[in-house]
Amino acid sequence: MQPTELYLVRHGLAGEADPTRDDRQRPLTPAGRQRTRAVAKRLQALDLHFDGLLSSPLVRATQTAELLRRAGLCKRVEESDVLAPGGDFEAWLRWLRHWRRSPGHRRLCLVGHMPALAAWAELLVFGQPQQRLVLKKAGVLGLTLPARGSPLARSALFLLASPRYLLE
Amino acid sequence: MQPTELYLVRHGLAGEADPTRDDRQRPLTPAGRQRTRAVAKRLQALDLHFDGLLSSPLVRATQTAELLRRAGLCKRVEESDVLAPGGDFEAWLRWLRHWRRSPGHRRLCLVGHMPALAAWAELLVFGQPQQRLVLKKAGVLGLTLPARGSPLARSALFLLASPRYLLE
Repeated sequence: MQPTELYLVRHGLAGEADPTRDDRQRPLTPAGRQRTRAVAKRLQALDLHFDGLLSSPLVRATQTAELLRRAGLCKRVEESDVLAPGGDFEAWLRWLRHWRRSPGHRRLCLVGHMPALAAWAELLVFGQPQQRLVLKKAGVLGLTLPARGSPLARSALFLLASPRYLLE
Repeated sequence: MQPTELYLVRHGLAGEADPTRDDRQRPLTPAGRQRTRAVAKRLQALDLHFDGLLSSPLVRATQTAELLRRAGLCKRVEESDVLAPGGDFEAWLRWLRHWRRSPGHRRLCLVGHMPALAAWAELLVFGQPQQRLVLKKAGVLGLTLPARGSPLARSALFLLASPRYLLE
């Protein structure tokens, strides 16, 4: 296997939670769409292209993923419940092992939620989730997973940035 | 005390190490100066201002620190051997405790070297150095240290970016 570059993107700004409505349907706000689109264009300008993009099925995540796709960052968006809140990290690791086996699969993007995204990054980099990584909405984490063996506690973190730092 | 925002900046690109010359005198290359200056301007555009800037006394670090000062990021540069390669983290922690006691001291910048800068960040965030943070030359780490008590294994990481991600 090759080392895998893994990008974790938190969904953009969504409306306030409303207990009378289904939280899974909560969409991005107009400002959230605009800022997420700007981040997507910025990543595209950095010559990023993802060989795969897996998104949480919640609307604020799929809308974020779709904005990444429209900016030319990936060919298609795949949805998976492992990225929904309370999702299953071990199930994702199994999915990842399979994904990495395909030739040309080197750069992967996950679109999801806090606190899971930071916790997953901490598991990959340091081996335990400590909730010490601050990932703002439409923010990006970048990791390098080693070519061989488990990525747990063996990956490197090369990027952690909120939109403020990515955008002019 | 207030929470402290701590920025760790790695010196810019310097010439190749030459065993016949004093490594402490190795200067930034013209390209290194240019890129470091661009990062300094970008941090200034982000409205950062440091209440203190402590630099390694090695020339490639003091030149980096001076470019930050000239961009308006701090009033003056202080040099300290604790930031030289092989420097003393515990001695810096003692210096920090003292520094934080002064009113108006909230945002601090350190200019230094790898692998120490990443190791210090890991100590502050996760409690042990694991060399899993990738900080390129003229790259920036941003941490928030808690208002009270030891910052060890209790700080948050909100920024890790090489110049590539900070600059257009």
